[in-house]
Amino acid sequence: MPDVLIHAGTLDCAEMRHEIPAAILDPFLYGEHDGAAFALLSVLDEGSVREVRPEVEIVDPLELGLMDLLEQGMDRDAALTEIALRACERAGLRSAVVPRRFPLGIADRLRAGGIELAVDGAQFDGRRRVKAGAELEGVRRAARAAGAGMAAAAALLASAEPGGDGTLQAGGEPLTAERVQAEVRAAFELAGAVGDEVLVAPGPQGATGHDLGSGPIAAGVPVVVDLWPQDRASRCWADMTRTFVAGEPADDVVRWHNLCRDALARVLDALAPGVTGRELWEVCCDVFEAAGEPTQRDPQGRTPLRDGFFHSLGHGVGLEVHEAPGLGRSGEALVAGDVVAIEPGLYRHGYGGVRIEDLFLVTEDGYEALTSFSLEMRP
Amino acid sequence: MPDVLIHAGTLDCAEMRHEIPAAILDPFLYGEHDGAAFALLSVLDEGSVREVRPEVEIVDPLELGLMDLLEQGMDRDAALTEIALRACERAGLRSAVVPRRFPLGIADRLRAGGIELAVDGAQFDGRRRVKAGAELEGVRRAARAAGAGMAAAAALLASAEPGGDGTLQAGGEPLTAERVQAEVRAAFELAGAVGDEVLVAPGPQGATGHDLGSGPIAAGVPVVVDLWPQDRASRCWADMTRTFVAGEPADDVVRWHNLCRDALARVLDALAPGVTGRELWEVCCDVFEAAGEPTQRDPQGRTPLRDGFFHSLGHGVGLEVHEAPGLGRSGEALVAGDVVAIEPGLYRHGYGGVRIEDLFLVTEDGYEALTSFSLEMRP
Repeated sequence: MPDVLIHAGTLDCAEMRHEIPAAILDPFLYGEHDGAAFALLSVLDEGSVREVRPEVEIVDPLELGLMDLLEQGMDRDAALTEIALRACERAGLRSAVVPRRFPLGIADRLRAGGIELAVDGAQFDGRRRVKAGAELEGVRRAARAAGAGMAAAAALLASAEPGGDGTLQAGGEPLTAERVQAEVRAAFELAGAVGDEVLVAPGPQGATGHDLGSGPIAAGVPVVVDLWPQDRASRCWADMTRTFVAGEPADDVVRWHNLCRDALARVLDALAPGVTGRELWEVCCDVFEAAGEPTQRDPQGRTPLRDGFFHSLGHGVGLEVHEAPGLGRSGEALVAGDVVAIEPGLYRHGYGGVRIEDLFLVTEDGYEALTSFSLEMRP
Repeated sequence: MPDVLIHAGTLDCAEMRHEIPAAILDPFLYGEHDGAAFALLSVLDEGSVREVRPEVEIVDPLELGLMDLLEQGMDRDAALTEIALRACERAGLRSAVVPRRFPLGIADRLRAGGIELAVDGAQFDGRRRVKAGAELEGVRRAARAAGAGMAAAAALLASAEPGGDGTLQAGGEPLTAERVQAEVRAAFELAGAVGDEVLVAPGPQGATGHDLGSGPIAAGVPVVVDLWPQDRASRCWADMTRTFVAGEPADDVVRWHNLCRDALARVLDALAPGVTGRELWEVCCDVFEAAGEPTQRDPQGRTPLRDGFFHSLGHGVGLEVHEAPGLGRSGEALVAGDVVAIEPGLYRHGYGGVRIEDLFLVTEDGYEALTSFSLEMRP
């Protein structure tokens, strides 16, 4: 096992959160030398670390001379960077692997001070691949929050009636994407989760992939509801999508929806340890291409696609919404303990789209579904 | 103006969010060459960028050969890194300044490809120092959310009565830190803000600085309520603290609270463009040391302090909760447009503490208070 360095807070860096599962806002240095871990951080955060990783040695920046550097007129960031080098020297660490996002400002100073650093993203992805214990429990709670949010969105859409102008009304008021988003957020909150971004994208907004959606919802158009709540206690995520139509769906939307369900079912037949993410993606492309839909696999897919299946089949989910393993062109072999979101989708630019997505734990003998909600298009 | 590169998503990187004020989860490359901006990102996110920065040239990774690299067996991260180099070459960018947290994984490849990178954190801090327009409006909304959260916390504490065992009861149930936190979060939500972490720390928990607080609240102990909501629309933050006592406070807590109010008033007398953060911190240290309280300035402050005034006086607030300018030992001169949180505090380890904090906009002729709530200790 090589020595390791990470420099980040625990609220916005999965690599750090995995090592120190506690809430620490400000970035700090975490290291492992010959298997012994140390953390360079203020006494303010010492208790939080001791609670979750009592064996980690806490090094206080003040003990390494921070105040003297500041008194000499060094700015705070430069001084903290200098202290990071001193902490490595004190630990006897001479070389380390670091995550892809290791900050260049720290890296340049450590290297100038003689510490060898090598980026090894796969090493850190690998540490987080197999979910177990508190992280798996956190994903399960987030998945339940996603289901609660989906139920809230479906209930509001189901209660709606078309008004005179063809847009939906609910409770005497126009039904907007924002109203659905607010209901979803309230459901997340009750489930101990938070979702800053909630995608409720009607009609053409649902065909762009990342438009969060806004404004009135028309009857008969597909509404993509893509939810990725984060469990507050563990900072673990889930990811789940349904597409609903309140009113009568168009024929092509019905066709897309059936194709997505078929694709998901075919992919699940193959989901088990050993299959590669690429193989799963190809299963989905097979289904869609056989129905005449463009995918990124066929030659026309080499230019940016705006119609058909223009994204990958999915991704790992854990302390990041998007993490290893990938389920696309470069997808590697799955292992038991992987948590993967599988999300077939079909779209036409300027018109609308359909996507369904569930979250699965890969098990020794197949998989276990973590998210749960009806796959019907009618809410 | 030097050429610039940033590599991040907009949801967790203030430098990027300042340039592209839209919601983009996945990290991407943003560059400026001879004053012209480009962004390397998927067509999925193109619309979001066009809406806020129509002049930014969008470069699609697929146009630069991403699929060929993946077909050749390169893993996705390596391929995207290679494409980042191609995007710089295409733009004619040969050297750039980057933020401190620029990811080492990208930096190493760009440098190997002949692009010179220099970390210049101050350049990016400077871009965000003066708040105006949408960001200032966002800070104002976050500050109102903080006030609403504080009112909710105070109302719940004010409604409480001591039970037989000395802990507070409200509505027939024990009053816990978690209940207060839930009320605060609900108030944030109604104000369009989100606060993953809400600090409600009674007694000894309030003396450690960063313990978020948990469990029953006893009558007569100081409860530190430190709120830092983030405005959902702009991703801008506010920061605000009050310390409440439900019941009769101890004499030393009353003395600390009066000292903190005195210190805040003395600091505000000096708050204006041109004063340095260090000078403001010294004003606060003067007040506390004259009352016999230890600070980081006096010689005993060179070892880690656990009692007295053990942190700095404050910090800038904007797209980060903690950003430039600092109000401590290395604090530089303030300018009109700075938004600063000022937070004098006094503590005794294992016993409790008092902190009060408000947010101020530095103006040409002094300051404007952005947060607003009673400074009384009784809720």
